[in-house]
Amino acid sequence: MLQTVRWTDNACRLLDQTKLPTETVYVDIVDERQMWDAIKRLVVRGAPAIGVAAAFGVYLGVRSFSGELLPFYDRLNEVCDYLATSRPTAVNLFWAIDRQRRVARDAGRSVRADTSDEHTIALVKAKLLATARQMLDEDTAICRRIGEHGIELLMPLTAADGVIRLLTHCNAGGLATVQYGTALAPVYVGVERGLKFHVYADETRPLLQGSRITAYELQANGVPATVICDNMAATVMRQDKVKAVIVGTDRVAANGDVANKIGTFGVAILAKHFGIPFFVAAPTSSIDMSLATGDLIPIEARSPDEVTHGMGRQTAPDGIDVYNPAFDVTPAELVTAIITERGVVKNPTTESLRLTAL
Amino acid sequence: MLQTVRWTDNACRLLDQTKLPTETVYVDIVDERQMWDAIKRLVVRGAPAIGVAAAFGVYLGVRSFSGELLPFYDRLNEVCDYLATSRPTAVNLFWAIDRQRRVARDAGRSVRADTSDEHTIALVKAKLLATARQMLDEDTAICRRIGEHGIELLMPLTAADGVIRLLTHCNAGGLATVQYGTALAPVYVGVERGLKFHVYADETRPLLQGSRITAYELQANGVPATVICDNMAATVMRQDKVKAVIVGTDRVAANGDVANKIGTFGVAILAKHFGIPFFVAAPTSSIDMSLATGDLIPIEARSPDEVTHGMGRQTAPDGIDVYNPAFDVTPAELVTAIITERGVVKNPTTESLRLTAL
Repeated sequence: MLQTVRWTDNACRLLDQTKLPTETVYVDIVDERQMWDAIKRLVVRGAPAIGVAAAFGVYLGVRSFSGELLPFYDRLNEVCDYLATSRPTAVNLFWAIDRQRRVARDAGRSVRADTSDEHTIALVKAKLLATARQMLDEDTAICRRIGEHGIELLMPLTAADGVIRLLTHCNAGGLATVQYGTALAPVYVGVERGLKFHVYADETRPLLQGSRITAYELQANGVPATVICDNMAATVMRQDKVKAVIVGTDRVAANGDVANKIGTFGVAILAKHFGIPFFVAAPTSSIDMSLATGDLIPIEARSPDEVTHGMGRQTAPDGIDVYNPAFDVTPAELVTAIITERGVVKNPTTESLRLTAL
Repeated sequence: MLQTVRWTDNACRLLDQTKLPTETVYVDIVDERQMWDAIKRLVVRGAPAIGVAAAFGVYLGVRSFSGELLPFYDRLNEVCDYLATSRPTAVNLFWAIDRQRRVARDAGRSVRADTSDEHTIALVKAKLLATARQMLDEDTAICRRIGEHGIELLMPLTAADGVIRLLTHCNAGGLATVQYGTALAPVYVGVERGLKFHVYADETRPLLQGSRITAYELQANGVPATVICDNMAATVMRQDKVKAVIVGTDRVAANGDVANKIGTFGVAILAKHFGIPFFVAAPTSSIDMSLATGDLIPIEARSPDEVTHGMGRQTAPDGIDVYNPAFDVTPAELVTAIITERGVVKNPTTESLRLTAL
């Protein structure tokens, strides 16, 4: 299987997802500016993968520091604050960065009082790298467990010909995480168990993560897949080509409202219209119990160019107004279940999510 | 206001739609070969506009003929047969050409027996030009009447700030007809009456008629417009940015089911979810009482390349399966009203449509 983020001897190696689906190119990220740029430009994308990448970014930002301890922590905070500005909606980004801040603080406190600044800083740096690598391993394990829980929900939807047919939006596959993905984890775990799938992938305008990335990884992993334009989902559902929708999420509010790639909300409404279950796969780290509802989730407005010059040619007149929200919020009442690494939360509410997330 | 097709002193002037949305270029078509090429290359597009252009093409193909009457009619038939090959599935094209054949035949028969061939041919030529110009005027008049009926439905939706906010899908605007369009006719008629509008245009994948054409013509005609990706419509509706959806149609079945560009059906489901009216604008010539329901409307499956290589760049992996239906069918129960040149049919049924269409 393709690996999105890995650690080489001295760099964080990312699969450059801006080059998909025609080229498989890896880039070695060696400092925090390159990582900021990689996150911003969606070289690495998907909340879990961004979190792991940012954790490496924190390490990369301080690894060449030499000096005294207080300036080191100043520098660390500067790097963390800077990396946190790369994608304003990605809660995993903040979570990963905060974890590194804590790790650094705790490591600094754990040394004997007479330890030299130089040694303390070396220890903290080593701890930051070890934590980033640990987060990478944890992500893989979490995704596998999401897959194991999710497949229990999907197996009852198997058609008479033995195939489980799903629709997904954007990419919450292996390429959104380190390896298994969230929304696609049940598919990959199911394939390992000998189950058969067919996945319809919304192309997901404007950035086409569905056709460029989801279709690419499903094809690479031998899972039958069909690409459709986003506006074909209603017809696919009406023709009974899919039995469920499964998507990932960037952030789940305490009440079960789900922020995900623009277009997810529309798919959820269609699923309700056709009586098809709408599943959201999410690590519990994506559940933000500090936000009462999805209305509080900030929605990033992205450049009009993504819409007007999206695919290599200008496709709208000069100077036209464009509305380009990167995400939308699907209200909890449209969510059949949230699948986490700790179990499935059906008809999510603040109470049921609290039991799983905390 | 932009005019798609017009007659100059000695040429049919077309707005070259292959140059949109970046250039506004008019081409003067002076013979049938140029017209064939213009229709073939989508310089002129939209069923009504193609029909009118082809009618001029018939005239242009024979106007320089000099000789005897029988060779003249041979030449006329040759021109008609040739033009009919430009877009083999365009019903309005055949309809317009057949009308010109009938006009030429009737004109030839109407002269006194002792009329010279030269005079008869001159008369037939004049009649062909007059008929093409009449078809142009008829199309404009039908669209205007659709606009006049439609504006009555839209005016009650005016917001407190005096603006009527609409969502449209694909292009059923002036550039698909001679001038006013169908779905956008109420907007242009409203503007003439001093009303204010803001139109959200779905870009309409895969061929992007919304961003390339609808946005262009609204901008050129001074109507505030915002381009969105198709999958943003749910968010636009939730944010109360639009008070109604208005679209065109390729064909309406007897029961009110509506075939239109892929994605229309999904927008109709969203409109229902948000309690927003969903209007369809259509000349009565688009209502096909011979088809009991929309299930009988054949849906063209188009090339995967439109999805995978849409606008100059490959956006899906080589060899991926693609589903690319060109149209979808919106069931009548989702249609708030069909707006025709003869009046508005609310909650269309076979009985109410028959009263209007026949």
